[in-house]
Amino acid sequence: MSLTLDREYEAPLAAAEACVTPDLRELAGRDDFALTLALRHAGPRRVRIRYEWQGPQDAPLLLVAGGISAHRHFAACARYAEPGWWPRQAGAGLALDTQRFRLLAIDWLGADGTLDAPIDSADQADAIAAVLDRIGVRRAAAFVGCSYGAQVGLQFAARHGHRLGELVAISGGAEAHPYASAWRALQRRVLALGRSESGSREALSLARQLALLSYRTPEEFAERFDAPVELVDGHARCAAEDWLEARGNHYVACTTPTAFARLSESIDLHRLDPREVKVPTVVVAVEEDRLVPRADLVALAEALPCARRLHLLRSRFGHDAFLTEHEAIAQILRGALVECRP
Amino acid sequence: MSLTLDREYEAPLAAAEACVTPDLRELAGRDDFALTLALRHAGPRRVRIRYEWQGPQDAPLLLVAGGISAHRHFAACARYAEPGWWPRQAGAGLALDTQRFRLLAIDWLGADGTLDAPIDSADQADAIAAVLDRIGVRRAAAFVGCSYGAQVGLQFAARHGHRLGELVAISGGAEAHPYASAWRALQRRVLALGRSESGSREALSLARQLALLSYRTPEEFAERFDAPVELVDGHARCAAEDWLEARGNHYVACTTPTAFARLSESIDLHRLDPREVKVPTVVVAVEEDRLVPRADLVALAEALPCARRLHLLRSRFGHDAFLTEHEAIAQILRGALVECRP
Repeated sequence: MSLTLDREYEAPLAAAEACVTPDLRELAGRDDFALTLALRHAGPRRVRIRYEWQGPQDAPLLLVAGGISAHRHFAACARYAEPGWWPRQAGAGLALDTQRFRLLAIDWLGADGTLDAPIDSADQADAIAAVLDRIGVRRAAAFVGCSYGAQVGLQFAARHGHRLGELVAISGGAEAHPYASAWRALQRRVLALGRSESGSREALSLARQLALLSYRTPEEFAERFDAPVELVDGHARCAAEDWLEARGNHYVACTTPTAFARLSESIDLHRLDPREVKVPTVVVAVEEDRLVPRADLVALAEALPCARRLHLLRSRFGHDAFLTEHEAIAQILRGALVECRP
Repeated sequence: MSLTLDREYEAPLAAAEACVTPDLRELAGRDDFALTLALRHAGPRRVRIRYEWQGPQDAPLLLVAGGISAHRHFAACARYAEPGWWPRQAGAGLALDTQRFRLLAIDWLGADGTLDAPIDSADQADAIAAVLDRIGVRRAAAFVGCSYGAQVGLQFAARHGHRLGELVAISGGAEAHPYASAWRALQRRVLALGRSESGSREALSLARQLALLSYRTPEEFAERFDAPVELVDGHARCAAEDWLEARGNHYVACTTPTAFARLSESIDLHRLDPREVKVPTVVVAVEEDRLVPRADLVALAEALPCARRLHLLRSRFGHDAFLTEHEAIAQILRGALVECRP
């Protein structure tokens, strides 16, 4: 097993090095490698897979995966101090405990914008299996996936079930809902409008803002953005626009239009027969989720041969509950992983 | 009272004339006139108001108003044979019976795209009051408004309550919901993206498609567009896209970007104190409406001084229920208008 420090992250960490013991720093690593992967729709392609791990080498392995804008850096650690996408669940002493488990995540295939081809959730699952080969791990204790990560987890369980002890699928199901697919299709059309007209940054920002709207709920907006609509330069401006724009523009700074389009498509291309998932599975649904309706996840849990449990959460954050309902999600994760403990 | 036939509609009607008695043809008319209206946000402006009426001159007057894409031609009639926007409710023998009532509707201020200024629902109400002056009618028996038309109806009742016997407000409330406002704000941003880049038709089509998504429900899409996502020219295409595109392109053929933007804004600028509505009012809410939540209309009905009734409908067509749930809406309208009968 060979792990090399990723060059692009070295510089900002110099300051942190002094106060970290060498021992702790060895509990995290990054690597990337190229391989030819047979993509489901696009055929064999040379791709580069980037991954990160945190936790003791001999601990049970947890695969972790989030939404399409998530990446391999799930949480800050001594070696990689920048914020991760799941800071309240992954880390020392947290539900996904890096002192008891080794956590591992990848950058999604296509996330760097260099792969302009249809990408399937099955391709991501195969990429993760290739990482297991690379690091010499035959079997992961569990796969914890949220949103797109749950789709990929289901594919991993269906295609590489013998390499997985357990699956936790949060807010992601056997296929995209037709209404959610239509919503994403229009986001990609906005993107295409911008690309053909050189308004690409604004279009990507808008597409992301439309996506954000689908992640959240009217209940949250009613509480948070209840100020009257104002006229600014002769045009109506509603209270949520500042927040949406800021989030959209932040996204543009770290994503390319191709990456957004291909990963958005990938959610819609995902389709899987739940009967093929023969791994014990915990399903988590959110009542208010406008993107992945509760009913679809109840149907998934009913169709799975080895469903262990179905959790129904209530959250005014809708599809984003896995990022915001810290306590409820932590409790579910601790319960689900209790048998995986070393 | 002076009514002149609108020139643009004469040609296609020649064929129909032979089989229509002159008497019937006199039961419908159109007119337009210019006046200076003090707009709430934009100040005094010279505007042209276009209206149509159907029904006997001495019958009680019903004001009828639909969504922002509705217009003065609510239904086909002997004189104006082209389809209207509410054919199943307005006409001889229907719930809004043109044999018992005289129905009247306007083209929204701003609908012709020549008024590029903030337009308020109160401005539309004042325009309708100006039509009453024009035709010499002191008082309308009722105002039946749906969606934006319900907002305008509430404003009419608040500002010109002494000229109105009763209000029926379907799927429109005292103010826009912040989540719905955000959704419309993004539609207008898409429009702005297209306008600055000369992709104006495509942008307007996309904005309309985003609006359509908000009018309908996941339940309808799940039934109607359940085919798997396909790859077309290397890009994912979901089952709803053909329908959305066709509807979007149809809309582009009869709307300008300015008209869409200003009327869309107008929904968000609408804000009214229900206590000012001192006219007997029937409120109709749809459980599945994603744009105008039931809870907001329940709150409206509770705050109105003279709420006569609150109807809660269930419909998989969501906000569009007033256009599609023919029987349920007809029954509500008949009940609401029973006391208005001549």
